[in-house]
Amino acid sequence: MNFREELTSLAAQVDDYLSAYFDRLKSEVPEKRLIESMYYSIMAGGKRIRPVLTLAVAKMMSRDPNEVMPFAAAIEMIHTYSLIHDDLPAMDNDDYRRGRLTNHKVFGEAMAILAGDALLNEAFTLLLETSVKAGNRIERAVEASCIIAKAAGRDGMIAGQVIDMESEGKQISGTVLKTMHRKKTGALIRASIVAPAVFIGLSRDEIKALDEYAEHIGIAFQIKDDILDVEGTAEEIGKPVGSDERNKKTTYVSLYGLDGARKMLDEVTQKAVEVLDVFGDKAWFLKEMAYFIARRRN
Amino acid sequence: MNFREELTSLAAQVDDYLSAYFDRLKSEVPEKRLIESMYYSIMAGGKRIRPVLTLAVAKMMSRDPNEVMPFAAAIEMIHTYSLIHDDLPAMDNDDYRRGRLTNHKVFGEAMAILAGDALLNEAFTLLLETSVKAGNRIERAVEASCIIAKAAGRDGMIAGQVIDMESEGKQISGTVLKTMHRKKTGALIRASIVAPAVFIGLSRDEIKALDEYAEHIGIAFQIKDDILDVEGTAEEIGKPVGSDERNKKTTYVSLYGLDGARKMLDEVTQKAVEVLDVFGDKAWFLKEMAYFIARRRN
Repeated sequence: MNFREELTSLAAQVDDYLSAYFDRLKSEVPEKRLIESMYYSIMAGGKRIRPVLTLAVAKMMSRDPNEVMPFAAAIEMIHTYSLIHDDLPAMDNDDYRRGRLTNHKVFGEAMAILAGDALLNEAFTLLLETSVKAGNRIERAVEASCIIAKAAGRDGMIAGQVIDMESEGKQISGTVLKTMHRKKTGALIRASIVAPAVFIGLSRDEIKALDEYAEHIGIAFQIKDDILDVEGTAEEIGKPVGSDERNKKTTYVSLYGLDGARKMLDEVTQKAVEVLDVFGDKAWFLKEMAYFIARRRN
Repeated sequence: MNFREELTSLAAQVDDYLSAYFDRLKSEVPEKRLIESMYYSIMAGGKRIRPVLTLAVAKMMSRDPNEVMPFAAAIEMIHTYSLIHDDLPAMDNDDYRRGRLTNHKVFGEAMAILAGDALLNEAFTLLLETSVKAGNRIERAVEASCIIAKAAGRDGMIAGQVIDMESEGKQISGTVLKTMHRKKTGALIRASIVAPAVFIGLSRDEIKALDEYAEHIGIAFQIKDDILDVEGTAEEIGKPVGSDERNKKTTYVSLYGLDGARKMLDEVTQKAVEVLDVFGDKAWFLKEMAYFIARRRN
């Protein structure tokens, strides 16, 4: 199987799981409009990069990816809630995401706030229910869930959102930029790789290698985002290009130039790939994933 | 010890725990403004009814209340996040709560959204960390956490907020009103009683009795809120009185009249007290708590 086929297949498994999960909620929960609002954003055609990484870690270690699917789905719910809240008028005030109207443009601000809250809550409900049923793996399930919680919270993703907000209109240093992205996007990407590694019981050295890989692709992901905002097309990335410059945002491109940013992207991608050498051939998909992140057009 | 002393003592224990918890975050987390915003609302002088109930269940069964403190604190964090988001301009648009400016009036809307998100996330981080450290009680810790998650989410508190929102300006039936409150306020009150009962390992019959008690005081709590909105003073309840009528809200008073609501309050309080008879004298505090909820002036 080649990389594109495997990527498509894993993303489809995530889509199927989430779609079935929220279809069940639609039939069970009387507050239809709430579930529709959650559904609208969770099924909005995201690339599923985080949950695919979660499944890929399990597959690399010859485990059934379904074992870690609840962790993958919970992470995607957390990612989705953060997008809904980020798009709100009081935050980034975005009308479009991935070429579709944002949640609050369709369901109204109040429902968008509640749907975001409900997705975050649902992620933890799923993690806790999975842990309850984990039998003799309950400790590892709870540890993996705890890694996800910390990545999402006041010292992870939300901290990154706060730094981003407080940096608005300001010139920030490369160090602050890196910290912001390490928390805002990197933390949850890291959790999507380390949480399944902990749950399936990998060795400390294996977890450490995956952790470093995660750190590198997290940075690569953001550098590429900044590059796409300059050289992508609105059609490809699903939102207006050049928005960073218009909003006077400090980016890898504004700090290091387009060539400088491209060079950093190459270096960090190379590091991500090399650190996986300990896994041998089994790491082929995660390695290709690093290249995919660096080369994507959206 | 009499009821007032015990209530004050338990609430002070909750205050101390939360204050120490967030002081630690202040020193550890670089994003000071985020933690300050969370701190502002969690230490805003709430009555701590939910966490006090959690501690009281442990004390009734002769357990150290500190055993269940993390559950109590997590529930208060969830309660507080819901108030911050409820007060937002897109939701109830309230400028004051408990006589102080609401979170977004002090920290701005964007930070208020993030502080709410972070409190919800923090609640689960605390529950998961507590579970990780629970040793041979890990299963019961996870079950108790799961009860809290479900009470807070799309079929609990958030569902109640959605019903409330969708009922705005509409006349709703007594059945819908009861469902709304059972979810919006009742679910988390119930969790504050059932979660510690599950964690400390009470019998099915004991849990059932406490569950019924919780259901009754949840209803009593809301009826009393509706009565206070009519007969309280702004000074006592910390917000303008008569807001329900101005906002054309269906309440127990609008549906059943002031006398009818008072009668329902008496009945449901009596039921709450009676169902605790199985615990004998040990239940004195929880019984007094039911009377307290019915007689409070704010």
